[in-house]
Order: sequence, then structure tokens, then C-alpha cells
Amino acid sequence: MMFENIKVIAFDADDTLWVNETYFREAEDAFVALLLPYENKDKITKELGETEIKNLSIYGYGVKGFVLSLIECALVLSKDQLPAEILGKILEIGKEMLEKPIQLLDGVEEVLESLQGKFKLIVATKGDLLDQERKLAKSHLLHYFHHIEVMSDKKEKDYLKLVKHLDILPSQLLMIGNSLKSDVLPLIAIGAPAIHIPFHTTWIHEEVTLEKDQNLDFKTLTNIKELIALI
Amino acid sequence: MMFENIKVIAFDADDTLWVNETYFREAEDAFVALLLPYENKDKITKELGETEIKNLSIYGYGVKGFVLSLIECALVLSKDQLPAEILGKILEIGKEMLEKPIQLLDGVEEVLESLQGKFKLIVATKGDLLDQERKLAKSHLLHYFHHIEVMSDKKEKDYLKLVKHLDILPSQLLMIGNSLKSDVLPLIAIGAPAIHIPFHTTWIHEEVTLEKDQNLDFKTLTNIKELIALI
Repeated sequence: MMFENIKVIAFDADDTLWVNETYFREAEDAFVALLLPYENKDKITKELGETEIKNLSIYGYGVKGFVLSLIECALVLSKDQLPAEILGKILEIGKEMLEKPIQLLDGVEEVLESLQGKFKLIVATKGDLLDQERKLAKSHLLHYFHHIEVMSDKKEKDYLKLVKHLDILPSQLLMIGNSLKSDVLPLIAIGAPAIHIPFHTTWIHEEVTLEKDQNLDFKTLTNIKELIALI
Repeated sequence: MMFENIKVIAFDADDTLWVNETYFREAEDAFVALLLPYENKDKITKELGETEIKNLSIYGYGVKGFVLSLIECALVLSKDQLPAEILGKILEIGKEMLEKPIQLLDGVEEVLESLQGKFKLIVATKGDLLDQERKLAKSHLLHYFHHIEVMSDKKEKDYLKLVKHLDILPSQLLMIGNSLKSDVLPLIAIGAPAIHIPFHTTWIHEEVTLEKDQNLDFKTLTNIKELIALI
């Protein structure tokens, strides 16, 4: 992989710059505990996953759509007997998620410090605009970035739009993120380099299986700090 | 007001390009009807308004936050005795809103046709990114616009960010929209021209009172078609 042409480095945000998926898992655990009077853990988790996937095209990514799916799922699991108390607690879970502090991942600030001024740095993230802007503000990383691109999805066409919007060639964009499906594969498909830094937890919807003989040209790092030596 | 310097024309979307507030009012009416067993119309409307304003900083603008506020408000009004059936209907109201067809306002396409090529046209809108992109796609207006800026808010600082992002001076941006508070006053404050095209319904939170002796330099049009002669 060649890095000489790079003009813009785009960082995914959730689980690349800061902890996020962990909070969704915690929220899911709290939800399961609330619904245990109605179903066992596996059934609840399965129903929730199905509700989320079903609603993804209408609600999109982010906490608010997740909470609406929690409520819908709770209605189904309680066979339309959902006590108001549980509903109130689900709304609380959502508000708590939206107000979580930002926990930066190890090495993030060091890397941004080192790349700043050498490249145009941007954030390229999926999710809710207000939510992502708020997280970026809370992270105190805002001054490292030229701007934040909140994308409605991260497919090839969305990255082509991003590249057009940035007025650069795909080969001049380097994407860095924790999701093979969203931050790496679509980039390779449009001819842009990408670096994968896995987070310990991946939403099942973001998981992909790579064929052993798929010889894809991307690097995997275990810590974002390895970027400094690489570029 | 001078239009010679204009490089970019930014259009608000909801209630400027297409009908939106009407759908929120219809949803509110449906909500009131569901909650009438618990309270009278005025009380329900008042409680809902207060819940929305209270949640605005955490949920932001858009349908999903609105639905979460409807649910919270229903819990309060039913004194925590909300039947699951009503809850299910509230979730339905939200999904229906998200799937509404787009109804363009009179003259919109004609105006865009006429301005296209002469200025860089963009959409500058508040709300939910996925929702706004979906509406723009459904509107078949996408090809008129260079891109869509979904803003988390429309205050002076947000427009200053927009102008910086567009790499132009405030005086080179013309904003067109239906909200005095969001589409006109902050623009005038940063030295950018703005045109007001009122929609027949305005969300109470967007209403502002202008002092009679406030001599603000902006034009008000009754139909967007008047733009063609003006610019």
C-alpha cells in the first residue's frame, strides 16, 4: 500500500477514536435485565437484533433509532402488556447513552498530534449528526480536524460522494477505522487505501467474513499508535 | 439588499422546498386523539410542547426525537398507566412520518431550474441526516444541488462554520428559508443576505417577534417564484 499520494486522512469515530460499542452492549444488557420476566436472555437478544435490522432502513444508525427499536421489541416480548415503569426505564437508558462521557482510545491524541499539519484530517462517521458533533466537542479533539462528515451510510457510493465533495481522487484519501465492512472494504473497492484497527467488540451487523484467498490490500493495526511509523 | 456578490444559494428544506410542518401537526393531532382518555386537548398540547423543548438539547431536531418525546409525554399524561396499544400506535405515527411522500411547494422546481448553473446551489437543513437525505432523494431535486449540509443547529456559529466550509465570505452566501429565527436572523447577524418565505404553519419554537422599529435588511416573499425576478 502506498501512502505518498495521501492528501486527506479520514478517521471513523465510534470505536476508532473513542469507546462506543461498549455502551450499546451495556444498554443491551440493561434491556435484557428489564425484559427477563417475559423471556430468556437468548430470545430477547435475538428479537432485539431482528428488530434493529428490520428498522435500520427507516431509523438509520444512532442512539435514538436504537431506543425506538428497544421499545418496539419490548412491546413484542411483553405480548403488548408492557408496564409503564419498564418503558420509562428504557427511555432513561437512551438518555444516559446520549449523555455518556467520551473515553478516548489509547494513542489517539498522540497520533492526531503527529499527523496534524501534514495532512487534512477529517472525521467520517455514521450515525446521528447532533450526537456525533456533541461527542466530538466533548472529546476535545475538534481542533485537530478540518471538519466532520456525518454519512448516512458507508457504502461505496457514499465514499465516492465524499471524495467528490473533498475534490480529491480516491487514491488521495486514506480511511482509518474499526469496521472492515464500513471503513475498509468499500474504500478498497473504489481504489482508496484503508487501514483496519479492530475494536474488541463489533456489532454483529458490521461483521463480515473474508475468504482466506481474498488477497485484499489493506493493513491491520492493533493500536492506532502504529500509524505514526507507517505513514 | 445586494445580490451581485452571491456565489452560493442555500435553501432550507422543510417547509421551504417541501411540506413538513403539516405532517408534524397531523401527528400531533393523532397523538392528542390517542391521549384524550387522560387529558383535554389543551393540556396534552401544552405538555407535549414542554417535553419537546426540554428534550431538544438531547434529542435534537427530527422525527425520531419527536417520537421519543411523544412516548415520554404519553407516560406522564397517562400517569404511568399507558396501555401497550397506545404505545404501539405512537411508534406507528413515527414510522408513517418517516415514510411520507414528498410534496414539493409551488414553484420550487421552476426556481431551481432557473438558478441552476448561475450559482452553486446547496440545501442547508436541520434535522436527521438519514431522514433529510431520504427526503431529498424522494424529491427528485438532488441533481440541482451541489450537496446537502445537514446542520445540527442554525445559529450564527453554525452558519459561520458553513461559510468557512464553503470557503466563501458571508456576503457571498444567500440563504432562503421559511424560518425567521433559523434561516434569516442569524444570517443578517453574520453579514449574509437572507430571504424569508413564510410557510403557513410555523412550529411555536421557531416563532420570533420582531420589534416594529427593528430595521432589518431582508426581503419577504409570498411565493418562491418571486426569486427569479429578484436575483
